[in-house]
Amino acid sequence: MKISLISDIYKELVPINSNILIKGWVKNKRSSKIGISFLDIQDGSTSQSIQVIANKKLINYKNEILTITTGYSISINGILVLSKGIQQKYEILSNTIKIIGKIKNSNHYPITSKKHTLEHLRNFSHLRPRTNLILAITRIRNILIQSIHSFLYHNNFYWIPTPIITSLDAEGTGEIFHVCVKNKKTIKNCTNNQKNIYEKFFNQDAYLTVSGQLTLESYACSLSRVYNFGPTFRAENSNTSRHLSEFWMLEVEAAFFNMHNILNFAEKLIKYTLKEVLKKNAIELEILSKLLNINISERIVKSINTKIIILTYSKAINILNKHCSFLKKKILFGDDLNSDQERFLVEKYFNYSIIAIIDFPKKLKAFYMRINDDNQTVAAMDILFPYIGEIIGGSQREERLDILDSRIRELGLNKKDYWWYRDLRKYGTVPHSGFGIGFERLLMYITGINNIRDVIPFPRTVNHANF
Amino acid sequence: MKISLISDIYKELVPINSNILIKGWVKNKRSSKIGISFLDIQDGSTSQSIQVIANKKLINYKNEILTITTGYSISINGILVLSKGIQQKYEILSNTIKIIGKIKNSNHYPITSKKHTLEHLRNFSHLRPRTNLILAITRIRNILIQSIHSFLYHNNFYWIPTPIITSLDAEGTGEIFHVCVKNKKTIKNCTNNQKNIYEKFFNQDAYLTVSGQLTLESYACSLSRVYNFGPTFRAENSNTSRHLSEFWMLEVEAAFFNMHNILNFAEKLIKYTLKEVLKKNAIELEILSKLLNINISERIVKSINTKIIILTYSKAINILNKHCSFLKKKILFGDDLNSDQERFLVEKYFNYSIIAIIDFPKKLKAFYMRINDDNQTVAAMDILFPYIGEIIGGSQREERLDILDSRIRELGLNKKDYWWYRDLRKYGTVPHSGFGIGFERLLMYITGINNIRDVIPFPRTVNHANF
Repeated sequence: MKISLISDIYKELVPINSNILIKGWVKNKRSSKIGISFLDIQDGSTSQSIQVIANKKLINYKNEILTITTGYSISINGILVLSKGIQQKYEILSNTIKIIGKIKNSNHYPITSKKHTLEHLRNFSHLRPRTNLILAITRIRNILIQSIHSFLYHNNFYWIPTPIITSLDAEGTGEIFHVCVKNKKTIKNCTNNQKNIYEKFFNQDAYLTVSGQLTLESYACSLSRVYNFGPTFRAENSNTSRHLSEFWMLEVEAAFFNMHNILNFAEKLIKYTLKEVLKKNAIELEILSKLLNINISERIVKSINTKIIILTYSKAINILNKHCSFLKKKILFGDDLNSDQERFLVEKYFNYSIIAIIDFPKKLKAFYMRINDDNQTVAAMDILFPYIGEIIGGSQREERLDILDSRIRELGLNKKDYWWYRDLRKYGTVPHSGFGIGFERLLMYITGINNIRDVIPFPRTVNHANF
Repeated sequence: MKISLISDIYKELVPINSNILIKGWVKNKRSSKIGISFLDIQDGSTSQSIQVIANKKLINYKNEILTITTGYSISINGILVLSKGIQQKYEILSNTIKIIGKIKNSNHYPITSKKHTLEHLRNFSHLRPRTNLILAITRIRNILIQSIHSFLYHNNFYWIPTPIITSLDAEGTGEIFHVCVKNKKTIKNCTNNQKNIYEKFFNQDAYLTVSGQLTLESYACSLSRVYNFGPTFRAENSNTSRHLSEFWMLEVEAAFFNMHNILNFAEKLIKYTLKEVLKKNAIELEILSKLLNINISERIVKSINTKIIILTYSKAINILNKHCSFLKKKILFGDDLNSDQERFLVEKYFNYSIIAIIDFPKKLKAFYMRINDDNQTVAAMDILFPYIGEIIGGSQREERLDILDSRIRELGLNKKDYWWYRDLRKYGTVPHSGFGIGFERLLMYITGINNIRDVIPFPRTVNHANF
């Protein structure tokens, strides 16, 4: 007999009063003294569970069914009926229930039906997908990425897998992971632990990518509209709730787009994905709102209905100097904004709107960002979200070879390292722009989760690479 | 004025005889002696180009337009008309043509309109997306991945980003990349080059993943149907046309599926994606067929219309021992099949069908594959494709804790390393199965490309991590 999914029941694909076979896990069980048990079953196909009724007439009622606890996997054959209870629409009157997998040593099972802290659950990354909270996040993540791919596809963007292993050392900025293989030769005269001796595999230093942008640009200079979506790495020793050593990033690059075009496009993309989540994850948003005691849908609806506020860096520091009470000293042109100042702008001054700060002093930004006519600022944008801070960073790219070269010189970089990137400007150069979205940070915003370790299945942070 | 995409013209979204603005690159130019130039323009939105007609009345005709060569980026304002020529349906009668980006030093520009070998183009990974061949591959890759996401989404599968950095050393099989950071302390008494001294970042040895399967299983034991799609790594010193150090892999895992269910599902997935490519990449398949002088569509249609042939390993070696002329000695039960033998089966014996070999001797396969009732073989499958060889490998997983433990012992692995994987069997275990698809190998099959370096934008192989 074919297995039915619980989602099929709620989509009304299974006729009422028909025979049905379900396989899944027990979320909860209540047994009455008169010999009836009620089992809530989930099978992963939906956040909704189905109630299964087992009564003492079942041959294994006493010996098996009464022993079932949360987490057992079971198989149920029965009749699907409309429930008389008000808690659920459907229920299954079981004819047979088979135990597939028990909970061995149930005292040690860390995922019981009672509520656990997120900190506790992080020790059990392999079992926490059995909780309603992590399941809701996972389902939203899935809709988020599907909607991103779909939106980009329908806007003529091509997916490009930019390399993870790279010989570019990230413009000298930030800490970076090295990729190597173990040296097979024994090195004798060495006081260092021999286990730490590695050698190169690629005939040159190789690193884990911090951004695929530069290689992505080479495809934008032919396909016009491209994106990548892949893992990205930082070897920073920052043990905060917003940083991971390994995270996923969406990078978008478009030829013939200036900074305002790409900002506009980023806004459309974000709003499209928010709408999709609102539409397709209504149940999960409700679960999260209840568990976290916040109104997530309201936050999302507000973001959809409010235009992103655009202001220049100069305007931003003026506002801060005038209105921000906690500044110790005046912010000068060229100073970087810290996260407290960003939060003041987003949450206090602009009342929890999404804001885009543009036209940053060139010394704050990378060599490839396009110099504005004032020769002091670059056509860069940071898009800041309430609660989270920066989720999107982008810019128009410098397409003029002579100016790019002078920026490379100015920043003490080596022109030779960028020979191929410079080729894109030598041969049929075009204005182009792009941005990167920190996928897990966007997911934090959408789910209301405060720690980035809880929106990725197996978080990697300094000193942690378990599982 | 709004930029139109060339794809919009072919989708008939731009009215004939209307004014149009196009920005793109010159693919080809012919000028007549009577003062008319024909420029073929592409803008990345489609494989099709649009012909632009420029005549000597344009003010910059002599000084600029006549100097234009392949690769120039230009902007064209003109009238879209139906072409009188038979080569193309539409053309644009230009009113103004502006040069955006020249080809500087055109003698050094490696991408001219003449045909280049794929070997030559590999030196210019940043410019080769300007060739019709690489563009066609890129467009097919895009449809392939979109159709994979879409098929899995509609079949209730959730995308799970399994970690790239892992502390599991790949069951001791195969060569593996190490991830570390540079040691900042200077190590004095060491004869080795100091540049090669690294230290751990994660407080333990860390590697680049060779498969996300084990972590994916932990999500399958709750969400039932899951997949990952991400980069995967091998530090093998194999310089062949089928191996990369970094490649993309799709891994699918499904609870309550046995090996035959998952094989059946893999077949449906493959056929769905092939149909999508056939439908949406007709132009690109034609381009490839012409350039490579093979009939790609025919190959794809045959694969869609032919059921995958399933045979056991035992049957496979019987066939080889009976029919294969080039065997030097009899293949015994337990011997691995080499690629010549696989090709004989797929291409000679089964006449270029896709075949699945199942039920391999347990000693040939990993510890997690489910032991069959004969206690000699495991419920594993290798799916072999004509021209390429193995593209898909999968199995039913061992869900029985006692048998899993005895396999771990048998293979000399450390039970402690798998504590969390064993937990999945301790707590509500279920039968489940999965497979992995080498994305670039599948793309080789669909595009007819013989070298895997040509189906990924920036290939990484031993000694090569350029760009």
